[in-house]
Amino acid sequence: MADRLGIVAGGGALPRHLVECCRAAGRDVFVLAVEGAAEPATVEGVPHAWCRLGAAANGLALLRKNHVTELVLAGGIRRPSLPALRPDWRAARLFARIGYRALGDDGLLSAVVEELEREGFRVIGADQLLHQAFVPEGPLGQLCPDRQAQADIERGMQVARTLGMLDVGQAVIVQQGLVLGVEAIEGTDELLRRCAGLRREGPGGVLVKVAKPGQEPRADRPTIGVRTILLAAETGLRGIAVEANVTIVLDRDEVIRAADRAGLFLVGVGGS
Amino acid sequence: MADRLGIVAGGGALPRHLVECCRAAGRDVFVLAVEGAAEPATVEGVPHAWCRLGAAANGLALLRKNHVTELVLAGGIRRPSLPALRPDWRAARLFARIGYRALGDDGLLSAVVEELEREGFRVIGADQLLHQAFVPEGPLGQLCPDRQAQADIERGMQVARTLGMLDVGQAVIVQQGLVLGVEAIEGTDELLRRCAGLRREGPGGVLVKVAKPGQEPRADRPTIGVRTILLAAETGLRGIAVEANVTIVLDRDEVIRAADRAGLFLVGVGGS
Repeated sequence: MADRLGIVAGGGALPRHLVECCRAAGRDVFVLAVEGAAEPATVEGVPHAWCRLGAAANGLALLRKNHVTELVLAGGIRRPSLPALRPDWRAARLFARIGYRALGDDGLLSAVVEELEREGFRVIGADQLLHQAFVPEGPLGQLCPDRQAQADIERGMQVARTLGMLDVGQAVIVQQGLVLGVEAIEGTDELLRRCAGLRREGPGGVLVKVAKPGQEPRADRPTIGVRTILLAAETGLRGIAVEANVTIVLDRDEVIRAADRAGLFLVGVGGS
Repeated sequence: MADRLGIVAGGGALPRHLVECCRAAGRDVFVLAVEGAAEPATVEGVPHAWCRLGAAANGLALLRKNHVTELVLAGGIRRPSLPALRPDWRAARLFARIGYRALGDDGLLSAVVEELEREGFRVIGADQLLHQAFVPEGPLGQLCPDRQAQADIERGMQVARTLGMLDVGQAVIVQQGLVLGVEAIEGTDELLRRCAGLRREGPGGVLVKVAKPGQEPRADRPTIGVRTILLAAETGLRGIAVEANVTIVLDRDEVIRAADRAGLFLVGVGGS
């Protein structure tokens, strides 16, 4: 049997999902839940500890004390400002070396992964723990994008890829050629909510989500789940297009059922 | 004395501002107010007519009937979807030629300006009617950006310029290197409002606003006014940086007073 798995848990449904997968596979886990990011449901009935993001020394000690050798980073963490982070000596040493302010989110996550490996942990990607983790190329449910939606997907891909290169965000919503909204730090759920009030008459828009080119694949994959589908439907969208073979889909069968029921297409596009 | 000036009025304070400027200069105006865009205050006590955006034939007839020869397009117009636009025969002819859906906002405005000139109108820019229309390079009020703010301005300029090239939006808010929000169709005021809830601890962020490279200079300039300053202060920002020599400032003296009073810097950057 594999060693005890450490799950460093940020927000969203992915960390809990990994807990369940490990349970089903009979694998031991220890969850290090990031304060202000992880959801309480993530740690229910599981060996765990809460830890401040800036308390690196404490976090490392907790992982070691709980005999973790293999680690996965899962779930979103909003990057705080340096004063709010209150780094301990261990985090301060890392940031002094890499330069906290100079780094984008991608650079920061890569540096954290490297640091964890230097400390002797094996860092793996969430996808390595999931069955059928990625959205494949092509439509996933019963519906396909029509010509207008296809054009919106192409426009959205162009904008989202460019934003990704700038390390700004991963998602964009396009309706009939108009970019209704662009994701920055607020996250995809918030983007969906605010675009509900910006939609135009006629055929609804499309959510397009891609991986940032510089993204550390073991730390921060674009992810969709049932919640994404439900919010997209509430926003009046006609479908969702994600980058194929890199976007993680949680509860694939449930997601497909939810999309079909809501009348949304869900399609994997031009994966790398 | 110059001919009667036609003001095709969209949203915001700029159209009314032009009315006042013409009044002060003793110049006759006729306002063609776009339904759903122009503010009622814009047309108060001024010869005017309201017109649907898609009713091009009616609009042209109104301008001719009111002896307009010189025209200015002022204020924002949210581009509707084609079904909501309900184009009359005249607008439909134009859109058939240029392809409504294929065009971004910039392309559409350029086409409209060209069409108006083909119809015999002289189209001028709002800046030609204003005294000290543009934000010059350097600080406008008493305050200057410090090093952190300067770094945020540079990051914001890079993101905003790239978004402009994609014809998405003109504005971005950056705090301590993090892009808090990016403007798409919602406009700068809405961007400011939603970023109030996303700010981090520590030194506040910066609003950066640039012209889109493809922008028709006679139709759609980046504009700031007292409202921008007040909203930026409410959002907890430390200052505003705009592209110098292309960004229109309304009520320059009032804007500077408002910025100084709110403790915000206002700076023109790297104008083209």
